[in-house]
Amino acid sequence: MMPRFSAYRCSLCDRQYSPGEATYTCPTDGGNLDVILDYAALNRNLSPDTIKASPDRSLWRYLPLLPVDDPGGEATPLRAAGWTPHFKPTLLSDQLGLRSLWIKDESRNPTASFKDRASAVVVARARQTGAQVVVTASTGNAGAALAGMAAAVGQKAVIFAPRSAPPAKIAQLLIYGAQVFLVDGNYDQAFDLSIQAAQEFAWYCRNTGYNPFTLEGKKTAAFEIWEGVLSGQVFERPLAIFVSVGDGNIISGLHKGFKDLKAVGWLEQIPRLYGVQAEGSAAIANAFRAGTETIIPVSADTLADSISVDLPRDGVRAVRASRQTGGAYLTVSDAEILAAIAALGKAGIFAEPAGAAAYAGLLKAVGQGLIGAEDEVLVFNTGSGLKDVRAAMQAAGTAPVIEPTLQAVKQVIGAT
Amino acid sequence: MMPRFSAYRCSLCDRQYSPGEATYTCPTDGGNLDVILDYAALNRNLSPDTIKASPDRSLWRYLPLLPVDDPGGEATPLRAAGWTPHFKPTLLSDQLGLRSLWIKDESRNPTASFKDRASAVVVARARQTGAQVVVTASTGNAGAALAGMAAAVGQKAVIFAPRSAPPAKIAQLLIYGAQVFLVDGNYDQAFDLSIQAAQEFAWYCRNTGYNPFTLEGKKTAAFEIWEGVLSGQVFERPLAIFVSVGDGNIISGLHKGFKDLKAVGWLEQIPRLYGVQAEGSAAIANAFRAGTETIIPVSADTLADSISVDLPRDGVRAVRASRQTGGAYLTVSDAEILAAIAALGKAGIFAEPAGAAAYAGLLKAVGQGLIGAEDEVLVFNTGSGLKDVRAAMQAAGTAPVIEPTLQAVKQVIGAT
Repeated sequence: MMPRFSAYRCSLCDRQYSPGEATYTCPTDGGNLDVILDYAALNRNLSPDTIKASPDRSLWRYLPLLPVDDPGGEATPLRAAGWTPHFKPTLLSDQLGLRSLWIKDESRNPTASFKDRASAVVVARARQTGAQVVVTASTGNAGAALAGMAAAVGQKAVIFAPRSAPPAKIAQLLIYGAQVFLVDGNYDQAFDLSIQAAQEFAWYCRNTGYNPFTLEGKKTAAFEIWEGVLSGQVFERPLAIFVSVGDGNIISGLHKGFKDLKAVGWLEQIPRLYGVQAEGSAAIANAFRAGTETIIPVSADTLADSISVDLPRDGVRAVRASRQTGGAYLTVSDAEILAAIAALGKAGIFAEPAGAAAYAGLLKAVGQGLIGAEDEVLVFNTGSGLKDVRAAMQAAGTAPVIEPTLQAVKQVIGAT
Repeated sequence: MMPRFSAYRCSLCDRQYSPGEATYTCPTDGGNLDVILDYAALNRNLSPDTIKASPDRSLWRYLPLLPVDDPGGEATPLRAAGWTPHFKPTLLSDQLGLRSLWIKDESRNPTASFKDRASAVVVARARQTGAQVVVTASTGNAGAALAGMAAAVGQKAVIFAPRSAPPAKIAQLLIYGAQVFLVDGNYDQAFDLSIQAAQEFAWYCRNTGYNPFTLEGKKTAAFEIWEGVLSGQVFERPLAIFVSVGDGNIISGLHKGFKDLKAVGWLEQIPRLYGVQAEGSAAIANAFRAGTETIIPVSADTLADSISVDLPRDGVRAVRASRQTGGAYLTVSDAEILAAIAALGKAGIFAEPAGAAAYAGLLKAVGQGLIGAEDEVLVFNTGSGLKDVRAAMQAAGTAPVIEPTLQAVKQVIGAT
């Protein structure tokens, strides 16, 4: 065990457990566990400059702040996760009247979604603990990420996906050599089944909102924002970060990353975290608006499959992520999500529905006056549009079929 | 005009033209034009260390060796093209009994294929010359790359694609805001039509094997191999590079890159270039085997749509790329391509058919004794598997659908 990983702490009851006393959720009340690092020791022994001088252009440059050992393996996709670009599309910031707009493009991860961060760290944990098999439930991206990261280092992976997951995502799971079960049910049923199977067969379960190490992987995106966007910049108000929310684990991971940086003494002001949910899958947004931490399940219905969740497994921390940072939750319709896919595309960024939802949320926040011209904004694209071509087709329409003649071209463009 | 860009030279008749005397192919015989740099000046004024010290983690670190000005624009997808990872999948090298095997993963480019390199440099050229519209014919990847790179900097793009191009690729074109024409004909008809349209409407034509600047973009992959793989390594025999071949422009681009490096005095030994074609689209391989530079068109038939070409537009240089470097051409069946998709996937790399074809070619070369244990090998994956999910499905098979019960899981895995 790394000395920097000192304990787990339950997000509900605040009880602490030594690293050997817990594996997934709180043994007392089932709450999500936070990994507690030895922040005082990190502050004494590590400087931001050491991190910033790392030649590692991946999330592994943050290994000193992660509760896992180096997963080993030179030059694999596992080593290449993270360190995604921060684009500054002036086309979009001009349209919105914003001074600064960054898009952090997570589609550039090895399996083309944000989820590689979580899976990379969970696979590192699995190797450290000698697990033979890693299992997860997934609507697609988390499974593909686990399958890809596991394949990169020869780790066996099992995935339970709802049979409604997009074919592109299922194909990706299979290509990476994972054993895949298409569950005739929704994500929540796949989730429960994967936990049962993990217990029955002694598999290591990666499930989002269940395994504490997914958050530790996802927090690395906050570290990259700290290093690439916040570093050396002075904002009048804290950076506003927009990210789509399904399970709640990504926004919680961002929050954890910023909290870790503050605890180590490297960050004064935590960015405002804005969660964006689909109107048809808004359990966390509902709780935020109701002023509670009680998450009431919904019957999810949105084309943004990656954030279509009846019962968010990380809802409490997700509500807090916005509430404690001065952010908010927004909900967007499927039509607004499709429009956001088209808007991002025109800036050269191809997002899947869940990825574009965050941008749709920003549009809404600007419309509502939550975000103004003076704000500095970063929006996550959490996954590649190639993952859900059907949605892209809906967003983009179709192209005309023409005979191979110049005359046919002229007819379409109206030239004579 | 940059002083380093001194002339064009025809690859057929060797005539030279000043940069203002030609635009696309040789005015005399229609041969492909090579861009000639002022190598002596580069040798005098530039050192490899200057390049290697560049903080730019994209193909733009090689700007001093490119015949274009900086396209401008901070932090756009155009600025993020290239600088793709070199993976070392020991699972695969062990299977093949090779000492060293690198996979250069071009699916990590902004629009998920090698073609971003060409389109990035062509868009830079278009901006330099003040072109209002850039047009191309494409089976998908080149078009997506042009559409994406153009969108990144607000340049208008028009794409002619055969209507048989995979839906994922068409969706990508449209999302990036390009004007798309689906031509009721094959790639070659789309190619001819795009040239007619470019002439008619004074658009700048990016067509592969026609516009000299695509080669200049693609050569940057050779620069990255020089910097990332060859640098400081001593091989008994030149590195063997495997790459899939359709039009012939990628392998010609690699050759050009290595020739440029040699001309500047930074490289002694050019790697051996192995071209891999689909059996059903093997016009260049046929010429190579016949010992000629005469390219006889075929009636292309392969599932690897990105390399399915009746009449390769850069065939002569593509034949020379292998012949002059001690490489060879190999042909692979669609079944071998599908098997290669599955093999790469198990190492965590998800390739489209054309991308996996190169790996299928390596397997064949090893089987034929062209490549042995002592060889150092690099294989390109030229595009993401997410671009052609139908092929991935064929390669991967399907997953079982189960009821959401542990019993159903046990039945599948044979546990009791």
